[in-house]
This record gives sequence, C-alpha cells and structure tokens, in this order.
Amino acid sequence: MNNPIRPTDEEARQLAQALMAQARFAALGVVDDAGCPLVTRVAFGLCPLGQPVSLVSNLSAHTKALKANPVCSLLVGEPGDRGDPLTHPRLSLQGRACLLDNESEEHTELADHYLRSHPKAKLYIGFADFFFVRFAVEVGFLNGGFGKAFHMLPKDLSQPG
Amino acid sequence: MNNPIRPTDEEARQLAQALMAQARFAALGVVDDAGCPLVTRVAFGLCPLGQPVSLVSNLSAHTKALKANPVCSLLVGEPGDRGDPLTHPRLSLQGRACLLDNESEEHTELADHYLRSHPKAKLYIGFADFFFVRFAVEVGFLNGGFGKAFHMLPKDLSQPG
Repeated sequence: MNNPIRPTDEEARQLAQALMAQARFAALGVVDDAGCPLVTRVAFGLCPLGQPVSLVSNLSAHTKALKANPVCSLLVGEPGDRGDPLTHPRLSLQGRACLLDNESEEHTELADHYLRSHPKAKLYIGFADFFFVRFAVEVGFLNGGFGKAFHMLPKDLSQPG
Repeated sequence: MNNPIRPTDEEARQLAQALMAQARFAALGVVDDAGCPLVTRVAFGLCPLGQPVSLVSNLSAHTKALKANPVCSLLVGEPGDRGDPLTHPRLSLQGRACLLDNESEEHTELADHYLRSHPKAKLYIGFADFFFVRFAVEVGFLNGGFGKAFHMLPKDLSQPG
C-alpha cells in the first residue's frame, strides 16, 4: 500500500499556520467516561505564543470530559459553501487540554488578547462558568485535499519570531 | 448548578433531522491506538433508512482507527460565514461504525442512493480503497445555540414513515 503522507515543506507549514490563524471555531474531540469519542463545536483562537485556546463553559459535556481526561483533538479549516468540501484544506490536531483558572492573572491577560479576535465573546467571557482551555499540541495532520497529506510537529505549527 | 438540558420536543427533533438531512460533510471523532481522540473531516450522507453513512478511504487514519475500535462521534451543522458560529445549531452524535464490504450488494445499492446527494463522489466511489461506513447512532446532543441543549435518542432522529 502506498504511503499517502508527503514530506512536510514550507508551503505545507504556511498552510497549516494560516488555517490556525484564520479559525474562529473548531470541532473538538474528547473521550467521555465510557471511552467513546464526542465531537462538539467550540470557539477557537490562539494565545500570544501561538498555542490554540478555547473559551468553554463548565456546563458543557466536553468540559466535563476534559476535566476527567485531557487528551483531545481539534479540527480547523472550514470548507465554505462552494466546491467539494473534501478538497478544502483542513488541519487535525492532537494533544492535551490545560484548563485555566478564570480568576488567575493568566486569564485576564488572555482575555484581553482573545477579545481582539473574538469581540462577541465579551457577552460571556466574564461569566463564572466560562474559562479558557489551552491546548498543548503534540502532532498535527494537514490534509490539503486528496493526496496532499502531511504530518506536522509543534515546531511546524508555530509562526517564526 | 442548573441542568442546561431541555426536554426534547417536536421542534428540536425536526431541527436535528434537518441538520442531518442537509449535511454533506461532518467532523468525525475516533479514538486512536494510543487512546487519543482524532477529529477529521469526512463525507456525510444518509442511507435509505436514515442512518448516517460516509464514504472513506482505507488509507486514512480515521479508517484505521475505526477498524480497531468502532466507537465514534459525528458533528454536523455548519455555521456558514455570518454571525457568531456558536449560536448556529449543530448536532453531535455518538455511536458505532460498521464498515461495509465494497464488493457487496449492499455497497452497490447504497452507492446508487448516495450519488444522488453526492454526485462528485462518482470520481472515487469505485476505487478499490474506498468503502462505505454506516453509523449506528446511540445518542445525539443537539445544541440550538446558547441555552438550547437537548438529548436525542435514535427514534428522535428518524423521520417518520
């Protein structure tokens, strides 16, 4: 069987970084207490260091699952309305979620940064049951369309500088 | 803490069924051999009995994972370009994947049905490494926007008749 994975090059890195920079939401995959995956939609942004972050509610099923088991996956790169959605580039990330205390200094700093890209989050960012999750990405899989698959390491996903 | 789940009503059932009927792709969550979730984009359609189906490649990571562990989740309901994506309704499904032999009679029947909603799949539906996966849904979670969450049973997701 052919190996469908191409060697990661600068074009692939830039595409993956652009998908992350543009995303305002993502599909989050967690594992529930029965061992089943659960995919939900969450907000998506980047922290000042370029790591993915989300703002989640304590009431949601994905938050409960992440508290019990932090392994997770994120899918970004939306197809839009035109063309075959499976030819549109997208990026799957795997890693671990770190839940941040919403009364910490880190929360306040991140909130200022996040609201620049997600101004509508102002409506609920101060609610007691909302807090940030930061994702420590371990590996990424870029699919640039049929036959254009690449593996990505954390260093491939960080913008230089 | 308040229970954010509302009692399932006819309006919620119709919304969930409409999200499934309109979807042409989905975010699929599987668990890999290390126990980590992986979310990827897959084609999405319905079989004649109304169960979700996808057409997947044998070369993909999600297919390898499903062969080893069939538990999975699907997210459908795309936000489009306008408004806050987290207010757009979406449906998370949990269940098990059943991989269908692409030389079976069931494959041929399903292919005819599927191509009516996915005409572009004609390009690869006959490839030796592509086959259908049917999803036996066990539970669904409808999120109609903030504060509008519903649990769905398989009977809630099937169109009457």
